[in-house]
Amino acid sequence: MGWLADETGLEKCAANYVPLTPLSFLKRAADLHATRTAVVWKSTRLTYADYAGQVTRLASALARHGIAPGDVVATLMPNIPPQAVAHFGVPAAGAILNTINTRLDADTVAYIFGHAGAKIVLCDTAFLPLAEDAIKRMEGPAPRIIEVVDEGFTASGHYLTWDALLEQGDPDAAWIMPQDEWESIAINYTSGTTGRPKGVVYHHRGAYLSATANILSWRMVLHPVYLTIVPLFHCNGWTHTWMTPILAGTLVCCRDITAKAIYDAIADEGVTHFGGAPIVLNTIINAPETDRRPFDHIVEVFTAGAPPPAATLAAFEPLGFNVTQVYGLTETYGPATECTWRDEWNGASKDDRAAYKARTGIAMPMLEGAEVHDTHGNPVPRDGAHLGEIAMRGNMVMKGYYKNPKATAEAFKGGWFRSGDIAFQHPDGYIKITDRAKDIIISGGENVSSVEVEGALMHHPAVLLCAVVAKPDEKWGEVPCAFVELKPGQTATEKELIAFCRERLAGFKTPKHVVFAELPKTSTGKIQKFELRAVAKLLDA
Amino acid sequence: MGWLADETGLEKCAANYVPLTPLSFLKRAADLHATRTAVVWKSTRLTYADYAGQVTRLASALARHGIAPGDVVATLMPNIPPQAVAHFGVPAAGAILNTINTRLDADTVAYIFGHAGAKIVLCDTAFLPLAEDAIKRMEGPAPRIIEVVDEGFTASGHYLTWDALLEQGDPDAAWIMPQDEWESIAINYTSGTTGRPKGVVYHHRGAYLSATANILSWRMVLHPVYLTIVPLFHCNGWTHTWMTPILAGTLVCCRDITAKAIYDAIADEGVTHFGGAPIVLNTIINAPETDRRPFDHIVEVFTAGAPPPAATLAAFEPLGFNVTQVYGLTETYGPATECTWRDEWNGASKDDRAAYKARTGIAMPMLEGAEVHDTHGNPVPRDGAHLGEIAMRGNMVMKGYYKNPKATAEAFKGGWFRSGDIAFQHPDGYIKITDRAKDIIISGGENVSSVEVEGALMHHPAVLLCAVVAKPDEKWGEVPCAFVELKPGQTATEKELIAFCRERLAGFKTPKHVVFAELPKTSTGKIQKFELRAVAKLLDA
Repeated sequence: MGWLADETGLEKCAANYVPLTPLSFLKRAADLHATRTAVVWKSTRLTYADYAGQVTRLASALARHGIAPGDVVATLMPNIPPQAVAHFGVPAAGAILNTINTRLDADTVAYIFGHAGAKIVLCDTAFLPLAEDAIKRMEGPAPRIIEVVDEGFTASGHYLTWDALLEQGDPDAAWIMPQDEWESIAINYTSGTTGRPKGVVYHHRGAYLSATANILSWRMVLHPVYLTIVPLFHCNGWTHTWMTPILAGTLVCCRDITAKAIYDAIADEGVTHFGGAPIVLNTIINAPETDRRPFDHIVEVFTAGAPPPAATLAAFEPLGFNVTQVYGLTETYGPATECTWRDEWNGASKDDRAAYKARTGIAMPMLEGAEVHDTHGNPVPRDGAHLGEIAMRGNMVMKGYYKNPKATAEAFKGGWFRSGDIAFQHPDGYIKITDRAKDIIISGGENVSSVEVEGALMHHPAVLLCAVVAKPDEKWGEVPCAFVELKPGQTATEKELIAFCRERLAGFKTPKHVVFAELPKTSTGKIQKFELRAVAKLLDA
Repeated sequence: MGWLADETGLEKCAANYVPLTPLSFLKRAADLHATRTAVVWKSTRLTYADYAGQVTRLASALARHGIAPGDVVATLMPNIPPQAVAHFGVPAAGAILNTINTRLDADTVAYIFGHAGAKIVLCDTAFLPLAEDAIKRMEGPAPRIIEVVDEGFTASGHYLTWDALLEQGDPDAAWIMPQDEWESIAINYTSGTTGRPKGVVYHHRGAYLSATANILSWRMVLHPVYLTIVPLFHCNGWTHTWMTPILAGTLVCCRDITAKAIYDAIADEGVTHFGGAPIVLNTIINAPETDRRPFDHIVEVFTAGAPPPAATLAAFEPLGFNVTQVYGLTETYGPATECTWRDEWNGASKDDRAAYKARTGIAMPMLEGAEVHDTHGNPVPRDGAHLGEIAMRGNMVMKGYYKNPKATAEAFKGGWFRSGDIAFQHPDGYIKITDRAKDIIISGGENVSSVEVEGALMHHPAVLLCAVVAKPDEKWGEVPCAFVELKPGQTATEKELIAFCRERLAGFKTPKHVVFAELPKTSTGKIQKFELRAVAKLLDA
């Protein structure tokens, strides 16, 4: 081990060691970029001094209301400034932040309140009914509601408000900084498509390093302007609230994700970066002319959840965007791999370009490894063919699942975090997801990638969105079944779309059924295939 | 403290914790950017696969020659590829790298060999006489010489060569990764203008974070091309060998720092970034027409050691460069603060612009704090006037001085590293060095900043370089004494320069003596004022 012959006097001390925490980033920005704009929302423009000031008040007010280090504070909020403030203010009280998905049902929210043991929930006026309903369903102690009244909303009058809470805070209070960078900073519940959601625990070290890795991967330089399309309750907004102060950037909030809101933020605030599911790209592509605004820079867009279909890229990028696919899970603080563009791909044909951009990518700089493993935990050959499970390890991987050491041990078996996602690896190391493990369709013994079938369908001019799932079949075991949402005013028949796919795909990959319907989506815009699978099962063969 | 009520199963494990080390950066680049150019020098072009391959061979060959974890391996090399390889290969053997300044005298090198206890020295052919002379002067065990034969040199025939050493390495050996990120990675001896140099010890964590901080501060994005003007033996080249793999950048070597070499590297290799003392800027400004090459991008130049004089900036930047001042010491892994340009300075007059650029700056993102402290260790008011000592703390501060716990404790007194440099702080937090502590001139009770007097002299068209030091004076205590190097073919008299200064400076700041001479410089281009002070003392009043 790398210890010198005599290490006397070379120990950690206050001068040379500080536990890594994103709190340091905001502290520095508030000190050295005090007058720069940190957070923007409607008529609110917080400088870094304001931002840190609210954090100080929140932390001390929470303490006044009984929040002790180690306690959990939940939120039920859209992407508005108090949600950003909570990302620093809750940890600055030594507490652990539990941002809850606002689109969950009351029963699940009740479960999360109880499982995490939240003492307070910071709740937007619009989600009071959800919080109240959840609390009613609880048997044990319930969190106290603090009401966050957003601009344009009226306080219910039943709860202490965010503004009143901050008023009670001490503007000169000191933040509680972690003594150990392994201390917990946040707990995020998985979307849990089956069974109860699991509480993914983050630590200060991981939040610090993941936020930094995002900058390095996203080619960000001083003063980025980041639009919060990804919900801040989703992996803490991919760690981006913690990231922006590093470069004294601006966080532009966005309550409702509409094309108009996005175009306005780009044109008015000079947004340089945002992340979002491919559905967001489609929203922009299909925006009515009146919602569009001109801008003269290229906006860097990071998309996750599914590879951007070629047709989407072809329509989207010429509008002034550069799309990069990222991949990750709640367990990896959001994005952990990125499909970094390679110089040798310049000049590729449109189709090749889209194929490159559809790759899942390579480990971000602060992730120690991302590989595809066979069932024995060995890396598969990098031949673009052998399938296996994506495994990741390093400082961007969660501490584990809260109160679930069994699931944690299972997820970390063999010293790697096992994602459950199926992929192969190209010779250059780029991973390519063929399917989320549960999304693979096995038809006549052949693996069918639902992503590939969806990519073919998206080329049809009438198709707005689609999802392909397995439908049980007596003869083939499973067959591909497509659910399609058409563009407004467009038409297409089942027969027509099946024929369209058959021109592009092998027979066993071609959907045997096409259903026209509005697709069920999660709060983050991911299509909920588990619901579609249930529907497919019921369909007549 | 931020621990959840139940932290069972949330401990560190192989999946979620890896000690921070720059070795991870090279490992990742070799894996995921294998074919990209990593290191360039004359006819040598190493891909990342080549680079990591040499590191593997070096590490295993060193082990074969008796280097065990914790041992010290020294180098005496210019900025050539083996010096870069050693930055990873020595730590990959679990050993500690001791890059020695090649311009030191044999006696000091002997002291360093003995103090660090180096077992092997990797020595460039040109510095064999120095290494041999140093070894002769040693009493204890001396390091074994491995000869590095650079392109254009002929092996002495007396030593095992670098190439032969690598040949003995196992191309499949595993790197020894640190078990603890606090393990030592390097030891760098201070330039020690007075007394014996001190061995500044770096750890893997600090190297990792400092390298990252440099990217964030230097506005670097994917694939930077970095020219090694700063000697790699100086704070490990400001950590830039460790930094380039993070972004899969290219390290362009440079054995002799000439304007031609710099222009060629920019034009031929597309250099995007380099660092260097202000003297390097002057070298470029004063380059003969035949050495200049056209290029069409802006090169980011980071300068340290002294603020860039206004006249230098005015002549230099229009040539295609953007200059940013950085500040740090060996104790802070090189640069730890940066004079980050502020938007509100855009449109400033030429003079104001130069004054802004002459600021020392603000803490880099990974430094926890940089402040100016009074003699009681309290921050001075940020009023642009109160003087104090620059103090820094955080993860970019050294472990301490090797085998010198007393000096370490002294340097870290009060929980901050005390730089010895005198400065004030602007209201916006920007630090401005008035003088290195030992460079202040106290004349008639007034503090005279030698930097200010030098700035005035640099405006004179005949002055190439200058340095102002204190000369003892019976009446005033001290008076400013200027040493001036004139541009080739230019003339000026002492009287003329004194009059020139008097027009720009208060009487007590105006030099009382002007000496024309070639200025003594350190290997990093810093003018050695201690020598000039000795000369000034001897001059007739």
